[in-house]
Amino acid sequence: MKVHNFSAGPSILPQPVFQQASQGILDLNGSGLSILEISHRSKAFIEIHEKAKSLAKELLSVPDGHQILFLAGGASSQFFMSALNCLPQNGKAAYLDTGSWSSKAIKEAKRYGQVEVIASSKESGYRHIPKDYIVPNDAVYVHFTSNNTIAGTQYKSFPECSNPLVCDMSSDILSRPVDVSRFGIIYAGAQKNMGPAGVTLVIVREDMLGKVDRDIPSMLDYQVHIKGDSMFNTPPVFPIYVSLLTMQWLKENGGVLAVAKRNEEKASILYEEIDRNGMFIPVVEKSDRSLMNVTFLLKDASHEAAFLNLCKEAGCDGVKGHRSVGGFRASIYNAMPLEGVQALVEVMQKFEEQKG
Amino acid sequence: MKVHNFSAGPSILPQPVFQQASQGILDLNGSGLSILEISHRSKAFIEIHEKAKSLAKELLSVPDGHQILFLAGGASSQFFMSALNCLPQNGKAAYLDTGSWSSKAIKEAKRYGQVEVIASSKESGYRHIPKDYIVPNDAVYVHFTSNNTIAGTQYKSFPECSNPLVCDMSSDILSRPVDVSRFGIIYAGAQKNMGPAGVTLVIVREDMLGKVDRDIPSMLDYQVHIKGDSMFNTPPVFPIYVSLLTMQWLKENGGVLAVAKRNEEKASILYEEIDRNGMFIPVVEKSDRSLMNVTFLLKDASHEAAFLNLCKEAGCDGVKGHRSVGGFRASIYNAMPLEGVQALVEVMQKFEEQKG
Repeated sequence: MKVHNFSAGPSILPQPVFQQASQGILDLNGSGLSILEISHRSKAFIEIHEKAKSLAKELLSVPDGHQILFLAGGASSQFFMSALNCLPQNGKAAYLDTGSWSSKAIKEAKRYGQVEVIASSKESGYRHIPKDYIVPNDAVYVHFTSNNTIAGTQYKSFPECSNPLVCDMSSDILSRPVDVSRFGIIYAGAQKNMGPAGVTLVIVREDMLGKVDRDIPSMLDYQVHIKGDSMFNTPPVFPIYVSLLTMQWLKENGGVLAVAKRNEEKASILYEEIDRNGMFIPVVEKSDRSLMNVTFLLKDASHEAAFLNLCKEAGCDGVKGHRSVGGFRASIYNAMPLEGVQALVEVMQKFEEQKG
Repeated sequence: MKVHNFSAGPSILPQPVFQQASQGILDLNGSGLSILEISHRSKAFIEIHEKAKSLAKELLSVPDGHQILFLAGGASSQFFMSALNCLPQNGKAAYLDTGSWSSKAIKEAKRYGQVEVIASSKESGYRHIPKDYIVPNDAVYVHFTSNNTIAGTQYKSFPECSNPLVCDMSSDILSRPVDVSRFGIIYAGAQKNMGPAGVTLVIVREDMLGKVDRDIPSMLDYQVHIKGDSMFNTPPVFPIYVSLLTMQWLKENGGVLAVAKRNEEKASILYEEIDRNGMFIPVVEKSDRSLMNVTFLLKDASHEAAFLNLCKEAGCDGVKGHRSVGGFRASIYNAMPLEGVQALVEVMQKFEEQKG
């Protein structure tokens, strides 16, 4: 049976990427060597690394003056590294709180300078994106989480201000066009739209750096990684390789603009069904609904096990909601084909017939 | 043509591991899902993670009271994390300097407390392991690098002292038996004997922790990772999976004692040829020669390109020495079969016939 993987992350990647990655493990481009055994200083890997950098630059239209890094340690490391590198002890940064990941970023940044939480949707259970707030002129940056995997909210437009934006884009990077020039830092764990777990894309505008005078361990210093071209130490070779394959797939399929259109289509089919189907209710306000993580509840929560069972029978995997929200969450990242969404809609309709 | 991979790291892994990993990418144990797309909270991955932990514990005879972590960020992150977590501001740690990696560990630790370098082999170009030194009683730990990939030296016995040992075992972990009870911390980037690049094994004795009162970012705090069972954030799923496969291969092939015997045999064949063959000279003092990284020079350095060419013709890849030592380096980790070593010896003999 075909399995449709709705997992929130690590999550579905394109099928051709699995085939190429599988082959690269047996024999990388006819070299007689596996991608898992080649040196990170080998010509073959340097080429992979360069291609991954230039493709990220191309797909995201990254302007010159922004550096592209592939680091280890996940977005969770960027929560403190962004502040460690860019927030002076006597400086102030503005943070928007839209969920669990924002909260963690806020907690980790506080040790380095003044952190002002200028808006939070915590009181609504993070079911909307705050829109009324004032960004202090003297904030060295404004930090936010562009897409919130747990509640299923997403910024449709970014904070309007002249301060540089710092953004955790882990769960919607490469899913829609973004004006990177407005961002001081973008960071994204690869394991949603970009690749497998184990590598984090960090895009840093160079003028964000060199403005703190604290002592920074080499491995935490963006400037060290820029100087070393992400090769200050042995990088996560295979996760970078699979990220390259995934970005190549994206390019072959029309790039970010084309995938954004498909993502709109997929999400609207699913949200339309949630709104139409009498058994379900949406979690998030219409204006803030995520195109990546679609959250919904049953009107009668006692049917949850029955619905999950029906999902399982249809091969729809990973639909159970996060424990803090309950209900269901269908993650429909770039690699989720339309047919996966249709399969889930069919399950919802079948469920309505059975229990409605 | 069969390629023999003598790369220093990332480096050769067992052929069956490549086949299993390749298959796991297409379909993990008949689940219909790729190892690259499953959630780190899925039953399948939790099982992989538990097995990897328990197999590391079994193969290394890790006593209770030592915790096993799989972290991101490489041994380079452990250079500062070990001191950050264990060296109080007013405390002292003793460090042994046996090469580039030791030096980096020393540099990174200095920001956290007093670092006393009790011995160094720098003046000999790191071509031996220092043996004459006194460990201060009040050092909270003694840090050393058990095997030095660049010069090709290896500790045959570990520092004799009652202080806890802290050791970078990146390049000889799982290659020989070690009395783990003497160690406060062992850390090892996987990409030599344990798996691919992208994950680091950290073994911490719990009484090493909780003795510093500084503020530690969550992602850098061993106690946070212990509490989260290495799942505080999304771990590097695939590198952990391949590490499990590699450890399973090791167990099936007799475990650490058996591989240590094979490693002795392989190294002695190669060193015997270096000592016998009139064209070559060894780099390292006999007593300190690494069983993992065999370094050697040509008596007449002008023949270097010719020798490397002969290596290439015979499929011997990655034999060029590190730029700081010159000459040649054959890394013969656990997964290097005897026939690979024999192939290189044949090249050395052929070279002697041609140029001798």
